Amino acid sequence: MTGDRNSAVCVLGTGLIGGSVLRAAVAAGYESWGFNRSATGVRAARSDGFDVSDDIEAVLARAAAADALLVVGVPMPAVDAILSDVKLFAPDCPLTDVVSVKAPVAAAVRAHELSARYVGGHPMAGTAESGWAASTPGLFEGAAWAVGVDPGTRAEPWMRVARLALDCGSYLVPVVAEEHDRAVARISHLPHVLAEALAVAGAGGGDLALGLAAGSFRDGTRVAATSADLVRAICEPNSAALLEALDDTLRLLNAARDSLAADGTLGELADAGYSERDRYDTLERWEITDIHPGDHDWLDRLRDAGRRGGVIRRLDH
Amino acid sequence: MTGDRNSAVCVLGTGLIGGSVLRAAVAAGYESWGFNRSATGVRAARSDGFDVSDDIEAVLARAAAADALLVVGVPMPAVDAILSDVKLFAPDCPLTDVVSVKAPVAAAVRAHELSARYVGGHPMAGTAESGWAASTPGLFEGAAWAVGVDPGTRAEPWMRVARLALDCGSYLVPVVAEEHDRAVARISHLPHVLAEALAVAGAGGGDLALGLAAGSFRDGTRVAATSADLVRAICEPNSAALLEALDDTLRLLNAARDSLAADGTLGELADAGYSERDRYDTLERWEITDIHPGDHDWLDRLRDAGRRGGVIRRLDH
Repeated sequence: MTGDRNSAVCVLGTGLIGGSVLRAAVAAGYESWGFNRSATGVRAARSDGFDVSDDIEAVLARAAAADALLVVGVPMPAVDAILSDVKLFAPDCPLTDVVSVKAPVAAAVRAHELSARYVGGHPMAGTAESGWAASTPGLFEGAAWAVGVDPGTRAEPWMRVARLALDCGSYLVPVVAEEHDRAVARISHLPHVLAEALAVAGAGGGDLALGLAAGSFRDGTRVAATSADLVRAICEPNSAALLEALDDTLRLLNAARDSLAADGTLGELADAGYSERDRYDTLERWEITDIHPGDHDWLDRLRDAGRRGGVIRRLDH
Repeated sequence: MTGDRNSAVCVLGTGLIGGSVLRAAVAAGYESWGFNRSATGVRAARSDGFDVSDDIEAVLARAAAADALLVVGVPMPAVDAILSDVKLFAPDCPLTDVVSVKAPVAAAVRAHELSARYVGGHPMAGTAESGWAASTPGLFEGAAWAVGVDPGTRAEPWMRVARLALDCGSYLVPVVAEEHDRAVARISHLPHVLAEALAVAGAGGGDLALGLAAGSFRDGTRVAATSADLVRAICEPNSAALLEALDDTLRLLNAARDSLAADGTLGELADAGYSERDRYDTLERWEITDIHPGDHDWLDRLRDAGRRGGVIRRLDH
């Protein structure tokens, strides 16, 4: 564990992501406990030896007493209700979240007047499964974890969040909320939409087509196995950015379509796709070493570094 | 090995797929050798201990003498040249192919008057890599292998092809050429097109977006790492069927787009995609046991069984 002060962590919502944070925090030595609203989820976590309860008031009272870092791990549609409870029972705790969009969460945090110690977060990891049963302590190992550097962010809660993410095995990508949301629309929400469309178009070929399907279809539709409710909860709060990404994609596909119809070729798409996949494969994640939380302009400097592909792998430079 | 007669196999083109057929055939005990036009490819295969030559005349003369099963393993644009050589040097050998489309290959085979002992084939396996170096004897293990049952197909070469595919570890999906091509447009060629578009749309978010990309983007763009020339060689000979599949996809995506713009929701797509991916995941591949090559109406009956999801796992029922 990278820090020894203020090391309690309280996870609100112990599904795939929140549950994995709880497991990873315990594994890293943090005093950690959690809340889940479903009795089934509570039983599952307890039977695995984790301290999870469905009594939100007790869970948050303990957090307030310990100055625990609160980690909101519920889907976007449930965030508002959780923040109401936080405001009531633990309004002064440092607060982060692992929700798939950042601007809507930040707006909800502001509405509940909880911004003072809030830092947005988003670990870029997951599976098509959901719920506590799918959670694992190693889910974030080697993954990017977006950490908010929005104007007004304070260094003290930021360090708490950064330490937890690093202790979960991730590296940090500093980013402001709106840029995060536009980015994940393209690399997380759009892939879900395309996977759904591919699943439907493939099945349009009947059992013969599905019976011939191999790796390209299996991988291309993998995230379509995510429950439809969860896909909506992930994508729809980011509809404006997703719409922009989808419109870009429709332009590319329409150009390929017109080229196929005109002369039977894919046009520019095959070369462009190969080249951009190669850019992704060879992307250099350079390490930010010279910016320290609390320094002059640290938020602006971290934001700029994140835009240029910079990541944080340790805090003790 | 399932058969003991006529067990020589000659592979023409020893890239990823042809090379893997050669490796698997040798592993299954067939007397096997191959042709590759590139000196580099020949050296690579020879240094791995395989009998591969760039002398097409000698390779085919040996095949003619041994009544070897010829396996055409070159991309569609190179098929015509190979068939010219086959017609010259080994016109009476049983002939199959592992090319990604079937109707254009069948047309080329007819043009070269080689239809008498031809049976189309297509193992549904591959990786984003290409060339001999990527070939493995286990590539077809547990994979579907489409085997042609077009009108006029003769039982004797059909059994040769079926035995080889089974001995490579595959199960057989009987299908006629045009239905195969429409099916693979949806489950193989369309996934390539969507992967390319996703790679480009994702990279449109810059290094920040690519740096946050995780499993959904990685899997959704995996086949965009296939060389652009190979993608064109796979997709473009099937442009009419691909156009139909792409138009279906554009209708789905436009509906989602309009729904996002109108009320911020994905509309019907999330439920439909989940449901069809589940259909794929739970597809039952039932075993055809009561149709024997050469029986009355065997081709029609195998075609009908294949349409309904039937597969062949052994020949000795």
